[in-house]
Amino acid sequence: MNAGVKVIDISVYDRRKATQTDEKWYNKQSGNMHWLNEAVYGLTEWLETDLQAARLIANPGCFPTAVLLGLAPLIKNNMIDEHSIIIDAKTGVSGAGRNASQTTHFSEMNDNLKIYKVNQHQHIPEIEQSLTEWNSNAGAVTFSTHLVPMTRGIMATMYADATDIENIDQLFNLYKDSYQDSYFVRIKEKGKFPSTKEVYGSNICDISLQYDERTNRIMLVSSIDNLRKSAAWQALQNMNTMFGMDEKTGLEFVPLYP
Amino acid sequence: MNAGVKVIDISVYDRRKATQTDEKWYNKQSGNMHWLNEAVYGLTEWLETDLQAARLIANPGCFPTAVLLGLAPLIKNNMIDEHSIIIDAKTGVSGAGRNASQTTHFSEMNDNLKIYKVNQHQHIPEIEQSLTEWNSNAGAVTFSTHLVPMTRGIMATMYADATDIENIDQLFNLYKDSYQDSYFVRIKEKGKFPSTKEVYGSNICDISLQYDERTNRIMLVSSIDNLRKSAAWQALQNMNTMFGMDEKTGLEFVPLYP
Amino acid sequence: MNAGVKVIDISVYDRRKATQTDEKWYNKQSGNMHWLNEAVYGLTEWLETDLQAARLIANPGCFPTAVLLGLAPLIKNNMIDEHSIIIDAKTGVSGAGRNASQTTHFSEMNDNLKIYKVNQHQHIPEIEQSLTEWNSNAGAVTFSTHLVPMTRGIMATMYADATDIENIDQLFNLYKDSYQDSYFVRIKEKGKFPSTKEVYGSNICDISLQYDERTNRIMLVSSIDNLRKSAAWQALQNMNTMFGMDEKTGLEFVPLYP
Amino acid sequence: MNAGVKVIDISVYDRRKATQTDEKWYNKQSGNMHWLNEAVYGLTEWLETDLQAARLIANPGCFPTAVLLGLAPLIKNNMIDEHSIIIDAKTGVSGAGRNASQTTHFSEMNDNLKIYKVNQHQHIPEIEQSLTEWNSNAGAVTFSTHLVPMTRGIMATMYADATDIENIDQLFNLYKDSYQDSYFVRIKEKGKFPSTKEVYGSNICDISLQYDERTNRIMLVSSIDNLRKSAAWQALQNMNTMFGMDEKTGLEFVPLYP
Repeated sequence: MNAGVKVIDISVYDRRKATQTDEKWYNKQSGNMHWLNEAVYGLTEWLETDLQAARLIANPGCFPTAVLLGLAPLIKNNMIDEHSIIIDAKTGVSGAGRNASQTTHFSEMNDNLKIYKVNQHQHIPEIEQSLTEWNSNAGAVTFSTHLVPMTRGIMATMYADATDIENIDQLFNLYKDSYQDSYFVRIKEKGKFPSTKEVYGSNICDISLQYDERTNRIMLVSSIDNLRKSAAWQALQNMNTMFGMDEKTGLEFVPLYP
Repeated sequence: MNAGVKVIDISVYDRRKATQTDEKWYNKQSGNMHWLNEAVYGLTEWLETDLQAARLIANPGCFPTAVLLGLAPLIKNNMIDEHSIIIDAKTGVSGAGRNASQTTHFSEMNDNLKIYKVNQHQHIPEIEQSLTEWNSNAGAVTFSTHLVPMTRGIMATMYADATDIENIDQLFNLYKDSYQDSYFVRIKEKGKFPSTKEVYGSNICDISLQYDERTNRIMLVSSIDNLRKSAAWQALQNMNTMFGMDEKTGLEFVPLYP
Repeated sequence: MNAGVKVIDISVYDRRKATQTDEKWYNKQSGNMHWLNEAVYGLTEWLETDLQAARLIANPGCFPTAVLLGLAPLIKNNMIDEHSIIIDAKTGVSGAGRNASQTTHFSEMNDNLKIYKVNQHQHIPEIEQSLTEWNSNAGAVTFSTHLVPMTRGIMATMYADATDIENIDQLFNLYKDSYQDSYFVRIKEKGKFPSTKEVYGSNICDISLQYDERTNRIMLVSSIDNLRKSAAWQALQNMNTMFGMDEKTGLEFVPLYP
Repeated sequence: MNAGVKVIDISVYDRRKATQTDEKWYNKQSGNMHWLNEAVYGLTEWLETDLQAARLIANPGCFPTAVLLGLAPLIKNNMIDEHSIIIDAKTGVSGAGRNASQTTHFSEMNDNLKIYKVNQHQHIPEIEQSLTEWNSNAGAVTFSTHLVPMTRGIMATMYADATDIENIDQLFNLYKDSYQDSYFVRIKEKGKFPSTKEVYGSNICDISLQYDERTNRIMLVSSIDNLRKSAAWQALQNMNTMFGMDEKTGLEFVPLYP
């Protein structure tokens, strides 16, 4: 930074502003406030700053990317009770990192499904930070994470009470409008739900919507390849944008299925 | 039945009383009311009838078994807002049946995670029937189902708003008391969460509890082997009980891990 | 063909010349001899005809592609006893086709390893046809096939008695020379052996060599992605060559690992 | 031993007699010759000593168990060219041990097939020791090992040139006779081949046979659950025999399929 080089930080270091929160969830010292204050949170589809002027981009985490792309239209448009948000997240084993451990041992995870870090995941403050920036009524969310016996893929299934919804079409129109210029976000047709393989190896985020009249509850599903959209490829998407290039440059990879 | 033989029905035929509901969710004619009215719902741990006097037992479905064993203590003791129940269920592929189809094709499901039948699963009325029998305030639940790339196992992650909870220990005591005589139900220690492999091949149901003060929400996880506890082995457990034998007879199989 | 269009046949129809053999192994009528006689067998790295003049290319099968790329240098240079060839082949489940069946059911193949069609696979005559064209002493091979619980990938482990080998370096030099102009064939370093994921999603064939002095036997391993190198992408490689373009056009996909 | 306790050694320590060989393959000092000389090699189905008199049993390794149960009838009855034996072995990931490593990382092995330790596996001298004890013409074998993306299971596919075989029925009769008193060995019917899941969780060894007239070669397949038959359960089978009990005591577990 001091040398005048633009930086895209793919670590967790520059993502959150509130250092105290940071220290509570991470159990370690937070980043340098000087840089933290300048950092632009790089959820490319919802940038609120001119990225071409930015010097430092904090690349979002894997779960926050899937969750925030899913919730943004609802939370920004006051369509849900902000205190009713429940996020049931699932990730492939690569989400647990490359380090060898008993948890990531093949014989341990093969043919197995685990739940871990219930309401304790370090991505919770990152998610809540964006939600409260977008809507001052937002607060704590419920967030649980599951480890699925597959290599890649995140699926976040989200539930919230609708406040003022007329019908399901209103929801679909909101999402289609919100993402009409977002090449890498696909809104699934009514009644269709995603599978992680449909975005395998790509920079795409698939989103599905459902509204249950019986409970007045909205269900959202958001699905990405955690080794692409929420990692190096989102960084490349930000870099493309930062330098005024087409955001798709180098990233138009078709999902590998099966 | 006419011949005086005792019957344990493992099909869906005798599980629900309300034929109209049945027809709506299943899109087919419901069972014979004569037998339906006599059928005892065989969730062994929560039998409300003398099973030795019963002539017809309706064996619970796979998701209802996991869900109801999890929710019973809360819903019976008015510990949650009955209208806040959200069930995020996950099943291995054997839950989709033995028939060969594109959905169950290895190349389709391997390394893949799917969500299906959102708020439309045929097990919803079966779950709601028991909940309303146990607590007249209960009503519609939110219920989504995911297909996980593993052969066996169901995990139901459940969320509900607490009504009157003092602390997490109160919850644990409730569950330990509720299941103190239930050999096949294990309450995990505080801070421990289940994985499906821990019940692989057994008749056991593992239950975990968590309470989040930030949101005043309870999270429950219930885990079974869908080819055992909620299928033939629950039927055997019922048969053992029906004939006055030890419920464990023939079923003390230790989970196969890994 | 009659309309003057060049054809690349990806089916099995045009691969073998001997119709009687064909009928025995396939249990169905063979192709039209008129076209069969004109068809060029499209193992791109070992084309013996000017492909630009060809009108009809028969694209090799998945096992033959892996096996023949592995054996070609040895069999063409009389380095092995032609009657000692044993091929122990393994394939991912996509090799069994897209049709849903009990064999390809997830719950059947997950965590399972099968052996099938021992010495009866329909690819045997296709392999033997090329071997005898390359070396008139060649004859019957032993060929067994295994189904591995993974979606993509073929690994052929091959064994043959060495006839006249001085040392292992001689072998490596032969293979490096043979494939020096073949972009899509990689000869692994001495002591290194392939895994199918190293070619996942690519048009690459990895080959490893070993010579055991104790038994005077050569072991060869050849590994491809059966949905790429031996299917549509080999066809594209042939098309590129057929029309005088760089064989790599559109095919320089880096393997997706993990 | 000094205290007069009978010992079943499940480690590799007491399995081989030739210490020099041992040191070459294992790259570590061999066992104490005093005990080595007394140790009985515990391949239960082919014990050549009165086990009830034995004080020390060396429990066979996983690959040797599968391989030797397969080859014993042929090698003992001079049915094959002893120098033509090729063993293409495959194992689930639990065969690589419980230690966490890059090799056993889920993301590394999932959807992957590896070949490793070609002609260098430490089980080779253990296999050759038994073969030469059974038939003095036996010598070096070719032995390669593959890592398959599954938790449990070993399949050894073996090839050898037939010396004096009249027809396939002769082979089947030999195997049925050899194992007529062996509860845990099943000879598959002609034309049927095993899958590892058919012995999943059990102490069973499945064996299949094929004879190819075109090449005068025999193919044998032997399949076990490496965490059972070749590990603790074979030790229990030996213990049962050692103490004059029924060998099946405690081991009549039916394979878990699927």
